[in-house]
Amino acid sequence: MSDLPTHEQAALQQINETIDLFFSRNTEDATAVSPYYEQLWQDMHRLIGSGGKRLRPRMVLRAYDAFGGDTHEDVLPIATSQELLHMSLLIHDDIIDRDYVRYGVDNVAGEYFKTYYDIVEDEAERLHYAQSAAILAGDLLIAGSYRLMVSSNIGMDALRAVLDVHSRSIFDVAGGELIDTEAAFRPARSIDAQVVALYKTASYTFVGPLTIGAILAGASDSDIEHLRSFAKSLGIAYQLRDDVIGVFGDEQTIGKPTISDIREGKHTYMVEEFYKLANEEQKVRFEQHFGDKRVTVEEAGIVMRLLCDSGALRKTEDTIAKYTQQAYDALAQIQVGDMSELHELVAIVTKRDK
Amino acid sequence: MSDLPTHEQAALQQINETIDLFFSRNTEDATAVSPYYEQLWQDMHRLIGSGGKRLRPRMVLRAYDAFGGDTHEDVLPIATSQELLHMSLLIHDDIIDRDYVRYGVDNVAGEYFKTYYDIVEDEAERLHYAQSAAILAGDLLIAGSYRLMVSSNIGMDALRAVLDVHSRSIFDVAGGELIDTEAAFRPARSIDAQVVALYKTASYTFVGPLTIGAILAGASDSDIEHLRSFAKSLGIAYQLRDDVIGVFGDEQTIGKPTISDIREGKHTYMVEEFYKLANEEQKVRFEQHFGDKRVTVEEAGIVMRLLCDSGALRKTEDTIAKYTQQAYDALAQIQVGDMSELHELVAIVTKRDK
Repeated sequence: MSDLPTHEQAALQQINETIDLFFSRNTEDATAVSPYYEQLWQDMHRLIGSGGKRLRPRMVLRAYDAFGGDTHEDVLPIATSQELLHMSLLIHDDIIDRDYVRYGVDNVAGEYFKTYYDIVEDEAERLHYAQSAAILAGDLLIAGSYRLMVSSNIGMDALRAVLDVHSRSIFDVAGGELIDTEAAFRPARSIDAQVVALYKTASYTFVGPLTIGAILAGASDSDIEHLRSFAKSLGIAYQLRDDVIGVFGDEQTIGKPTISDIREGKHTYMVEEFYKLANEEQKVRFEQHFGDKRVTVEEAGIVMRLLCDSGALRKTEDTIAKYTQQAYDALAQIQVGDMSELHELVAIVTKRDK
Repeated sequence: MSDLPTHEQAALQQINETIDLFFSRNTEDATAVSPYYEQLWQDMHRLIGSGGKRLRPRMVLRAYDAFGGDTHEDVLPIATSQELLHMSLLIHDDIIDRDYVRYGVDNVAGEYFKTYYDIVEDEAERLHYAQSAAILAGDLLIAGSYRLMVSSNIGMDALRAVLDVHSRSIFDVAGGELIDTEAAFRPARSIDAQVVALYKTASYTFVGPLTIGAILAGASDSDIEHLRSFAKSLGIAYQLRDDVIGVFGDEQTIGKPTISDIREGKHTYMVEEFYKLANEEQKVRFEQHFGDKRVTVEEAGIVMRLLCDSGALRKTEDTIAKYTQQAYDALAQIQVGDMSELHELVAIVTKRDK
């Protein structure tokens, strides 16, 4: 998604400027509290500046444009709020996943683990305090996302409506995160990976941002309903594509070892399908390596082969195709507006290789 | 604060009904996602129903009444939102403080530690997942607090204004929490306990709720400014009183062992003053026991004696008296409204013994 059309590049720059302004102002306010608080804000600013495709803000703007929205000024803070929410979720997810690196740099907990190096001797204690700072950082960015929305000069009804959508996104994504986390230890098949994909990914990546953009452009209720269906299908297809790339993707292209999803034993739709389709002998071989923390590249190859041979990969591709078609169908129902860019989005999202 | 006048008892009941309705609705929505998500909402509902004086919602209503607000209907969800914020902060604070009990019952992490007992064998893992559920619970209640505010039917300008105050409360309290946590290991005297009291306690307990109530009642900007000064002074006095009770309070009255603040070595204004006032010999004896995880009742008695003898207790009482006076002075500046109940509040807050 790096070859952006010119108007999207301009939008991206405006989003990044809005982010910078938000963090500069908050850092200034934090300085008045304590230099230690200033440090937390500087650290969050550094992290959000280190990466991210600003996918969610861009989804707001795409929907806004599709439904004929004409001035970006009041929409920008609302679009940008979606990136703050994303960042807050990443920061808290990283605590849950015990990850300390994000966008190739230290995340908040990773940075604070270093900050506290000289003053907290015990390593477990230091980790705990670093994670504590990260908990607060995530809280601040949730509040920050609302604050940025409220700072927009849009009218009352629109503001209430987009704030409601935003709250609903958080409700959905937290539920998705909970059951995704629990899927690691709950009984097999008690949690459906398609449900996880809908709530953990589709909700706040597509459903929330696209709905917000449509509301701001004044789309009709029925068109918004079709757009929601579109966003759900698109989001699930996006997540399923992610799962396939996570195992079969080219390391060079995606920039992280594909072996890691196999090492973690990541519970995905494709793995669910494997358990439905594979024979006993295949399952035994699969379990020898899947989730093995010390899996080799050769053994990861065996897992990939099993996912192919069992038909799990093909089934996943079929399901992606099914959701892709549903997305197109929902889009075709929309009465007013120019959906061509959202149409293009489907191919970009579902056929990507990174 | 248990002998409430009749109109406050009625308000308390309405607040609790609003809380129940909020959690029932969200639990219902969570059921549609997953029974495991339903469980998280049920658990939060159980926890918030287990205790809490609803101090912050009542502060909203007190200020609203003081400035002549006449109908509680649209104010109730906004008042109640302050309890959701409080609960979210408690849940995240408990993770940071590694506490598993709140209001005498299991908190979210404590409850999930039991929930996961049969499915996560390793205790450290189980604790991590229990804390992960608690992180999500806190996030949901931050979002929930905004959602409840937005659900009120108040006008546009008032809604924007109270949402801004709310966001500012979260900004302040997170800063206060960060520096309070860091005070445990940062160099001595690099963090001022009065600053911690202002940001960690006064901000979201008094400043936010009272300001919100005044805005909703249509108070003037200058009166709101005086009320903010009042709330800051009152909040600091409240926290300093809390610190004194934490060490010198009667166990029977406050319902928890006073020894625990001594055992934890809690960084307070009184302790700061001790270090300014005590002689070397007193400091040596103090440090033998203060922060000792296995401190005995007799040794705690030595610490109490040292706080008295050094003059730290008297200095703290003087400072409480100073802030109390400042609170009265600020209140006297207010031009319009009936401040008698806020006047009474000062004595209740600063002279309490639990």
